[in-house]
Amino acid sequence: MPKQDFIEMATEKTASASIESMYRVFTVAEAPESTLGRIDQQISHNLAGFLQDHIVAVEKDLDEVEKDFSSSEIPEQPIFVSEQTQHLLDKLVAHSVHTASPSFIGHMTSALPYFMLPLSRIMIALNQNLVKTETSKAFTPLERQVLGMLHRLVYGASDAFYERNLHDHSIALGSMCSGGTIANLTALWVARNQCFPADGDFKGVRKAGLARALKHYGYDDCAVLVSKRGHYSLSKSADLLGLGSDQVIAIDTDDSNRIRPDRLIGRCEEMKAAGTRVIAIVGVAGTTETGNVDNLAEVAAIAKRFGIHFHVDAAWGGPTLFSSTHKHLLKGIELADSVTLDAHKQLYVPMGSGLVLFRDPLTPNAIEHHAQYIIRKGSRDLGSKTLEGSRPGMAMLIQSALKIIGRTGYEILIDQGIEKARYFAAEIKKTSEFELISEPELNLLTYRFAPESIRRQMRNCTPQQCREINELLSKITKRIQKTQRNRGKAFVSRTRLNPPQYDYQDCIVFRVVLANPLTTRDILRGVLEEQSGIAAEPEVRELVEQIEVIIRKAA
Amino acid sequence: MPKQDFIEMATEKTASASIESMYRVFTVAEAPESTLGRIDQQISHNLAGFLQDHIVAVEKDLDEVEKDFSSSEIPEQPIFVSEQTQHLLDKLVAHSVHTASPSFIGHMTSALPYFMLPLSRIMIALNQNLVKTETSKAFTPLERQVLGMLHRLVYGASDAFYERNLHDHSIALGSMCSGGTIANLTALWVARNQCFPADGDFKGVRKAGLARALKHYGYDDCAVLVSKRGHYSLSKSADLLGLGSDQVIAIDTDDSNRIRPDRLIGRCEEMKAAGTRVIAIVGVAGTTETGNVDNLAEVAAIAKRFGIHFHVDAAWGGPTLFSSTHKHLLKGIELADSVTLDAHKQLYVPMGSGLVLFRDPLTPNAIEHHAQYIIRKGSRDLGSKTLEGSRPGMAMLIQSALKIIGRTGYEILIDQGIEKARYFAAEIKKTSEFELISEPELNLLTYRFAPESIRRQMRNCTPQQCREINELLSKITKRIQKTQRNRGKAFVSRTRLNPPQYDYQDCIVFRVVLANPLTTRDILRGVLEEQSGIAAEPEVRELVEQIEVIIRKAA
Repeated sequence: MPKQDFIEMATEKTASASIESMYRVFTVAEAPESTLGRIDQQISHNLAGFLQDHIVAVEKDLDEVEKDFSSSEIPEQPIFVSEQTQHLLDKLVAHSVHTASPSFIGHMTSALPYFMLPLSRIMIALNQNLVKTETSKAFTPLERQVLGMLHRLVYGASDAFYERNLHDHSIALGSMCSGGTIANLTALWVARNQCFPADGDFKGVRKAGLARALKHYGYDDCAVLVSKRGHYSLSKSADLLGLGSDQVIAIDTDDSNRIRPDRLIGRCEEMKAAGTRVIAIVGVAGTTETGNVDNLAEVAAIAKRFGIHFHVDAAWGGPTLFSSTHKHLLKGIELADSVTLDAHKQLYVPMGSGLVLFRDPLTPNAIEHHAQYIIRKGSRDLGSKTLEGSRPGMAMLIQSALKIIGRTGYEILIDQGIEKARYFAAEIKKTSEFELISEPELNLLTYRFAPESIRRQMRNCTPQQCREINELLSKITKRIQKTQRNRGKAFVSRTRLNPPQYDYQDCIVFRVVLANPLTTRDILRGVLEEQSGIAAEPEVRELVEQIEVIIRKAA
Repeated sequence: MPKQDFIEMATEKTASASIESMYRVFTVAEAPESTLGRIDQQISHNLAGFLQDHIVAVEKDLDEVEKDFSSSEIPEQPIFVSEQTQHLLDKLVAHSVHTASPSFIGHMTSALPYFMLPLSRIMIALNQNLVKTETSKAFTPLERQVLGMLHRLVYGASDAFYERNLHDHSIALGSMCSGGTIANLTALWVARNQCFPADGDFKGVRKAGLARALKHYGYDDCAVLVSKRGHYSLSKSADLLGLGSDQVIAIDTDDSNRIRPDRLIGRCEEMKAAGTRVIAIVGVAGTTETGNVDNLAEVAAIAKRFGIHFHVDAAWGGPTLFSSTHKHLLKGIELADSVTLDAHKQLYVPMGSGLVLFRDPLTPNAIEHHAQYIIRKGSRDLGSKTLEGSRPGMAMLIQSALKIIGRTGYEILIDQGIEKARYFAAEIKKTSEFELISEPELNLLTYRFAPESIRRQMRNCTPQQCREINELLSKITKRIQKTQRNRGKAFVSRTRLNPPQYDYQDCIVFRVVLANPLTTRDILRGVLEEQSGIAAEPEVRELVEQIEVIIRKAA
């Protein structure tokens, strides 16, 4: 009679009814006909229908939404599951973002394969903790396998290499983490620690810290080099690692947002002359804003020449390697010392899954750590070489995706995304109102509101007039983007770029990410048509007239 | 005809069958009668039954398990979902760890409330990204609410405080993260950056790095002070932040594993004299090994006296604040500048959810960062003050747990855990074979194999003989722990402690964590009985005889 026993263990002062209810919370499933039970089934059988039915299309102002989440009280007494479910449906789900919508093409979060839902339930039901085998068991070899599969995708080492290393617990082919930021941070952490190892009396940067490390090795500073389009997680990492975020040196890019090798070499030489130790050069395989890929082979050669750790941030673009047609864009990635991938992006795994791979599986020993109660020395626990401690078994979802979608399946997804981006770019060029700002290299592109007639007449304007016009075009682009978002039919994001054709002036642009397999050409045309419609509305016309005034002055 | 359109977009070289199958993966749910559909329903209706049926009780050697995960090939062609599901059931689930079992009392991972499963499905189905409101919308106010609820639990500020600050996007009451390690790291990052702010020409440690910061402020080094029982994530953090892990100074503890205030004061004075800037003093509210709580009020006073950031690692013990009976143990936590909590521990949320709270909501501005495409200045995006970038909407699960379990519900769970620990400690004391090493203060305790007769006779032994006996007792304790684990009926963990009663010699001990509400007194007695049985087996007897030989020599 375990239940009886449980009740007996109650302290006198608490009501036995509540103890019973706590017992039920852990032992009795929600009835299928309960509010939560019904929702659960609806999501299982018809996810698209659930999202369609429950997320309201028209934006509610965030100020309004905040009112529904304004209490900071933890209720004294439990509330019913049904009541909470209704609250979530009405207040949270209704005003969440329909990231799976085929017309949500503004960010890197998109639809999930259906099988992810029941598989996630298995993962959550098992509630494993990957920090140590005592709470993960088979999940640990599974995670090593997933790291091996992706290592092979990136580095393509020999069968013998994987046979030897996959389950060798003294090394690691990579490190799982909650996302690309932690992955980039882990890579730079490893790189920094490898730059300043123990040496004689000096115990290494890991134990003795960065100030002593610089002193011992005779440097004034250290730095990370990456193109101007590098992700903001890199400067966050430089702050964390004690380098200082100013020590992420932004290298100029060419007109296609790719790092300029000549400038990179120049900076490497400058750094050397100035006594600054460059701990890593970061290549970008899919910039967040435009989806461009650095010439990785060339950057690798420069890193090698200067003896610097070469990291590739392929959080977005990594899965392009699945495509026979497009993988050449990432040529040279196999020369990287470390590579970041995000599984929750183009591997179509739910939010919260990234990883970093290491070409040389001895590399992560630079960050190895132990504790007595777990991850003891010599154990197989993966926790000794991860930044995070307790972690969920997301590797199960990655392995499943890799197998159920397969190399060919991912190839189709990648190829289609790039093709759609090219189609959309062509459509933009066909219009007279919009101007393509960055050509799609992967499945990202940017464009803006800039009618052809205005563009033509800007040639006769002074630089000052051009700046004014660009500011107004930015204002219009921003207004169109916000209006479209608020209307809830489609979503593109926006960012600020400095296009060469406008003398590197600040321009606000629309940003489109085409990763949802359900996005069709029809939808893409619809996005442009809606924007065109908004552009014809009085509020925008007014701004266009301001531009026309400037142009008339110039004429 | 979106489907037709989708197919038309295919590149010529890929088979249209595969494009269709990729389309299906994103649009067609698993049939209820499919392998995965059936598993999904079983978990939904009877989680305990599913785990019971599918996790094999007897340990399979990890070497054997590894063989099932030895391929590093990503399959060229997709495999069927049913095939993958069967693979997961046979190879992964079968050999995972039954963390929800009431007799799994060795680690901090335990059972989940039933409602977590369907709620997690909603969370995963929505696939929000909390880094920015454009991919999270109502989840952002929700997350702020959850931070507010837990801030109130810890700090109990006024209604006016929460009204003013809860949704003020220029500040943050805390920072969500994937777990306690990131939470502790975030706290120390904030503390470090606050120690070395911008000042005149110096741009602050955040931008200019640690070496320049120390130079500018005239320090030789910086350090973190915490008791010897502090979590290993603190030295990992010190490594990451560029302090060096040796700069985590371990302060002696008293006989109850609590930091010794006199020693702490001594160290603070030493540090000051040596030109070392202490960036944080860390109080522990529930040590990982023994569950003891530092005298937080006293530590707070010392931190205040020396003007040092006071952080409390309450990853485990934080929810003790729900208990009217036991919350006094954490008195002084409300004086902390920052506090770590783990939601995936005693808030009973699935793996991957921790957070850090800040008393002063301006504090996290020390780590604020921005980017053009997201988290623009002035936005409501939470990503500007978190270490991680993309993050899932775990806050939804925390909010639900706080409301469905309620303050009273958590109180019962906490009270029962502590009561069970006291019961188990009493049972251990009743036996003649086992020795309680650490009394339960919260719901953790440690003990070891050390028959009363041996303990008595050790008093007549030389220190050298005692050491030898202790080593043998450790060996036996370790063997019993491993054997019990392998037999799969129950699991306690083990660690190494230095109990004062044995002159601080290394002793391996059993470690018990009582957080699963379904663990009964029967089960606890069963654990001891099984251990007692193992102790009577020849392998252990042999080691006991070796002890007896030493004792005879002593006599």
